[in-house]
Amino acid sequence: MASMQNSAGLNVHANSCFSEKNDNLEGIFNSCRRVRFGFDDGSKVRKPLRLNANTRTNVETINGKKVNGSHVGGIPHLDQTNSECDDDQDSSNHEYLMGRFVENRFVFRQSFVIRSYEIGPDKTATMETLMNLLQETALNHVASSGVGGNGFGATREMSIRKLIWVVTRILVQVDKYSSWGDLVEIDTWVDAAGKNGMRRDWVIRDFNTQKIITRATSTWVMMNRETRRLSKIPEEVKNEVQPFYLNRASIPPQNNDSEKIEKLTHETAHIMRTGLAPRWSDMDANQHVNNVKYIGWILESVPIKILEDYNLTSMILEYRRECHQSNVLESLTSMKPRTCEENGEIAKENCDLECTHLLRMQDDHAEIVRARSVWNFKKP
Amino acid sequence: MASMQNSAGLNVHANSCFSEKNDNLEGIFNSCRRVRFGFDDGSKVRKPLRLNANTRTNVETINGKKVNGSHVGGIPHLDQTNSECDDDQDSSNHEYLMGRFVENRFVFRQSFVIRSYEIGPDKTATMETLMNLLQETALNHVASSGVGGNGFGATREMSIRKLIWVVTRILVQVDKYSSWGDLVEIDTWVDAAGKNGMRRDWVIRDFNTQKIITRATSTWVMMNRETRRLSKIPEEVKNEVQPFYLNRASIPPQNNDSEKIEKLTHETAHIMRTGLAPRWSDMDANQHVNNVKYIGWILESVPIKILEDYNLTSMILEYRRECHQSNVLESLTSMKPRTCEENGEIAKENCDLECTHLLRMQDDHAEIVRARSVWNFKKP
Repeated sequence: MASMQNSAGLNVHANSCFSEKNDNLEGIFNSCRRVRFGFDDGSKVRKPLRLNANTRTNVETINGKKVNGSHVGGIPHLDQTNSECDDDQDSSNHEYLMGRFVENRFVFRQSFVIRSYEIGPDKTATMETLMNLLQETALNHVASSGVGGNGFGATREMSIRKLIWVVTRILVQVDKYSSWGDLVEIDTWVDAAGKNGMRRDWVIRDFNTQKIITRATSTWVMMNRETRRLSKIPEEVKNEVQPFYLNRASIPPQNNDSEKIEKLTHETAHIMRTGLAPRWSDMDANQHVNNVKYIGWILESVPIKILEDYNLTSMILEYRRECHQSNVLESLTSMKPRTCEENGEIAKENCDLECTHLLRMQDDHAEIVRARSVWNFKKP
Repeated sequence: MASMQNSAGLNVHANSCFSEKNDNLEGIFNSCRRVRFGFDDGSKVRKPLRLNANTRTNVETINGKKVNGSHVGGIPHLDQTNSECDDDQDSSNHEYLMGRFVENRFVFRQSFVIRSYEIGPDKTATMETLMNLLQETALNHVASSGVGGNGFGATREMSIRKLIWVVTRILVQVDKYSSWGDLVEIDTWVDAAGKNGMRRDWVIRDFNTQKIITRATSTWVMMNRETRRLSKIPEEVKNEVQPFYLNRASIPPQNNDSEKIEKLTHETAHIMRTGLAPRWSDMDANQHVNNVKYIGWILESVPIKILEDYNLTSMILEYRRECHQSNVLESLTSMKPRTCEENGEIAKENCDLECTHLLRMQDDHAEIVRARSVWNFKKP
């Protein structure tokens, strides 16, 4: 049996994973519609960007690799220093708002100003905000790449085959949260993750300092949006996406938080919040819960004292099942201090905390998301 | 007793309204912290914009009116046609992201691209998204005006006096909802509303068609953030804000939906949702529920069939009381069809609907928000 090592360090056995209903992983995907992170099977065709006439790439080539018949063109190029007057400042500004390719089209970059309603009680951008912005850059990356199909994040060859990307894991590590009005620059790129997965990475820079303030990585597999079955990546899709692959990791392997996330139960959880019901406004364009919303529910079982006195510095989410508006959820959390030192001695108070989380269905306890978070005590 | 006619057509008696604890309105403000719409008493100082050297205005003058000692300067000027090469494209782009003054500084304009996570199940921007964007332009208007103090939306003279703006009413009328990737341009300006109020209006244009797709107006009064008492607008604050006043209405008076909003009860409501609890992520930078979030709760008592089959074309909110994270709310809605014709006859089906809403505390039924919404049947 062939084994596929994906970037998350998970071993997925290819034979069982992509064959007929005979393994656990398949069961997960078969029984319910999967959560998506920035990719969707919607039918809306993303309207093309308003473009300048010149493009950086040959129609037949991306990143020096021949493209399998896909039309590739019309890519904004604001990363190039513009040495001529731009007599269409508005157009240029609007492209700027949409993002642009840098580093020979291997990296897609978009700038955002943190808005007043994207900050939380501590006046800095929330984890949900960061995840939303990551999602937005991912979608614009695909839409701007010239290989976009008619779904959110799907390529043309994927759309033909009714394939969608589904996320299985995302890890976000935050060094510094931005404030209202701060300008951030998000870079994103993709790479292979084993034979049948894709990895998408991001870094967020503070524009003024140019320091990286957040790093994130995610793992994706492919699914038929009608049969809900996992799929290998067809050659035609590989030909579309491989030219964009960049062998670079935003988070070095040793920091990739690859330790298994324990499955919480009623007994092992310290806090449980029940009766969490999705609101209409939590639904995305496909009448499913937008997967960034899960973070809000996870935080519902974190004590307010922690939310107030600690910074959330790392969060890893493993998506296992999607939920609909009619579902009622439970949020479970357990906590433990991380060892910390103060004046050379092991401190007993105000150490960083590590939390384990589980979101599950209230009725049958089916797992929706397992997660782990790390909280850093805010020095007064 | 002097009577102040504000733009909403409400009569507020100035003597009682701004005197010692002796009227109903005062009671509302006294008993609880008021909801705010884009204005706040937070202590964070909004960082200055990155600026070009040249400004459009004399330091002592705004809109041709002398400013009472306030420093006014450093305003981006992207509305001017730039006839020279801009050797700092990035800087220009970033100012563009932040918004700029147009029409001799009477109007503040900001452009937004609708993001993937700002659209709802019908794939268009949600009412919450529109309200968020209105809030953002309002705050950036004040922050960019040169009179901003150390709170969200407060002027310098307000900050000195611990005064904040509180919104009492907002009306949003939507002709067309934008889709993901659409570029919208929001104009906002302020005007007097009676002697002690301020009106803030907005229009949202679709950038490509330049058509106005949404109009909005709101009414504001001033409150001491510590005593929670209403305040007249001090002369020093008037001197700061009056130079920006523009006598223009985004919504003509005859369309201003000034009819009283009936107070719903358990008996008159058709639908009631109870047990609505704010989440941590609903809190704003002052540990209060961000008032855009109320819309989500209001929609919780609107049948899904209406949410799916109708477009929300108009919504008016009257804010009466704020709520905190510990509050539990009830959402009440009543519905009635609007008379409509089909082939010259009064139609019985698929007419537009008018809903009346009430958000109230679950324990003592204290009113939080009254609202009215109009729903337009989506033609298949």
